[in-house]
Amino acid sequence: MGCQERLFSAKSLVFSHISRSSPPAMFDFWDQLGVFIFAVSGALAGRAKGMDYFGMFVVGLITGTGGGTLRSVLIGDTPPTLLQSPNYLLIAIAATVFAFVGAPLWNRIKRVISIFDAFGLGLFTCLGIRVAQNHDMAWWALIVLGVISGTFGGVLRDLLRMEVPLIFRREIYATAAIIGGFILLGLDELGVASPAAIAIATLSIATIRILAIRYSLNHSKS
Amino acid sequence: MGCQERLFSAKSLVFSHISRSSPPAMFDFWDQLGVFIFAVSGALAGRAKGMDYFGMFVVGLITGTGGGTLRSVLIGDTPPTLLQSPNYLLIAIAATVFAFVGAPLWNRIKRVISIFDAFGLGLFTCLGIRVAQNHDMAWWALIVLGVISGTFGGVLRDLLRMEVPLIFRREIYATAAIIGGFILLGLDELGVASPAAIAIATLSIATIRILAIRYSLNHSKS
Amino acid sequence: MGCQERLFSAKSLVFSHISRSSPPAMFDFWDQLGVFIFAVSGALAGRAKGMDYFGMFVVGLITGTGGGTLRSVLIGDTPPTLLQSPNYLLIAIAATVFAFVGAPLWNRIKRVISIFDAFGLGLFTCLGIRVAQNHDMAWWALIVLGVISGTFGGVLRDLLRMEVPLIFRREIYATAAIIGGFILLGLDELGVASPAAIAIATLSIATIRILAIRYSLNHSKS
Repeated sequence: MGCQERLFSAKSLVFSHISRSSPPAMFDFWDQLGVFIFAVSGALAGRAKGMDYFGMFVVGLITGTGGGTLRSVLIGDTPPTLLQSPNYLLIAIAATVFAFVGAPLWNRIKRVISIFDAFGLGLFTCLGIRVAQNHDMAWWALIVLGVISGTFGGVLRDLLRMEVPLIFRREIYATAAIIGGFILLGLDELGVASPAAIAIATLSIATIRILAIRYSLNHSKS
Repeated sequence: MGCQERLFSAKSLVFSHISRSSPPAMFDFWDQLGVFIFAVSGALAGRAKGMDYFGMFVVGLITGTGGGTLRSVLIGDTPPTLLQSPNYLLIAIAATVFAFVGAPLWNRIKRVISIFDAFGLGLFTCLGIRVAQNHDMAWWALIVLGVISGTFGGVLRDLLRMEVPLIFRREIYATAAIIGGFILLGLDELGVASPAAIAIATLSIATIRILAIRYSLNHSKS
Repeated sequence: MGCQERLFSAKSLVFSHISRSSPPAMFDFWDQLGVFIFAVSGALAGRAKGMDYFGMFVVGLITGTGGGTLRSVLIGDTPPTLLQSPNYLLIAIAATVFAFVGAPLWNRIKRVISIFDAFGLGLFTCLGIRVAQNHDMAWWALIVLGVISGTFGGVLRDLLRMEVPLIFRREIYATAAIIGGFILLGLDELGVASPAAIAIATLSIATIRILAIRYSLNHSKS
């Protein structure tokens, strides 16, 4: 009996480990929208470097999923979601097609994409913190993992096309994620419901980013 | 008794985990030949960038083992084979010596190396799929891990020498691996014996690659 | 009873796993000094590429902790120490401030930094070997992990600023780490006390590096 109870509790641990490895289901749509937006930016960046459509697909896939994958590897939560659901491959294919078809319109929709990208950064940072919270990490480690989730895909995108990563030059990018991470943890502390906290923190990150783009803010000049 | 049985079964799990982390023993020779070929390409690439022999050795080692190592990290199958057998270090040393001695003959043997490289891509893709199959992954995840195993070493080689990775420009490279992966899974489904299935899939990948090189195929032009 | 004993022993395993994932406590000061030195070199490298202070901080953090983080991921010892203690973030912040304030003096203190960097390489290599020894790895794998711990942060620093990593051109860097690794393992074999062995091996690595810098040694010319 005692053994069986322990066995059962071991099983629960296994199942809870599996379930906690994914972001909350209710954010799946936003997670996948974020992957799509980042994948489009990656595919277009590859196209600008003269890559073929397969190269665009790979850079798009890596840009969209790189942040979450590094987070999974760092906290030992393998395999990453990229290998748990085929959706990410399908999203990267759709993003490549979109980038091929949409590239001539790119100048016109650049502003729209910037806004989506800002929301993607916000969502990825918040979802990264939520996943990390299920692994009992300290608050500063949550912020670090949130920033990694939100920004690392773009770092890989820039490395693969041989550019000094933009995050190292437009530093308000990561700064926005850090501020939003503190807002999320603060709202958690105040007992705000999780969806509301994520919505507020995501909006804050997106707003900071959009204002920074509009006024070309960076730390050196401010 | 019940407890002991469970303990025993836990032990079996541990042992089966250890044994399944390596590719099938009968392919060890081909695996190591593939590492050698890729390591030679890495060492020569380093030499072309003015690296010293130690730099050539490191780039060769990373080119030969990078794909398998990333696969191990992504599926949580650590430590990677690079740290389980000293053979890979010895192979990289041999490849560096070969690249030093053979470089003057490189133009003449370039065609031979291309053929070996094509077989290496095929073998690495198939062995990567076999390792992933022991980790109960979905079919599309098997293909992804096979392509990573077959191509990522070359991506690292190009990044370390500051070139946009060739895979992003000669996309028939990864496409050949994808087609071969589907062939391998199809033959598995039909009940073909594993060695025969690997041989056929490897030959298919190598043939596609060699034809693509001969006719300078790429997706844009075809 | 039998079950409880097994449970207890499982608990010990868990605790021993946690404790063995960190380098020995007595070397914490030196570990953190090494991180600081490497982080300063990363922050200054970022500054030379026109990065802002946040970019300098990130490159500094990655340079200081990249080697240890890759080692953790390769041996499945996650999360890495970067996520286990906030000290590394604080050290990277201090290093960024130091690089900002100290940059005008850089030419004068360059020699001092080279000496610190040489000791950092030595300490990181030895601490990396000690951590790997707690994971029951073969001697050649210990050397590989020691070299990775000592050098990979600098490789990432150079990749992020789009330079062919210096380690591939100044190969006496990794060679010094390899020689020191053999010295450490040899002293262990002779039964020398661990702190003395680490001190001797670290001094050896630092001395080789400093002599190599002074006489501009590299393998090609020697």
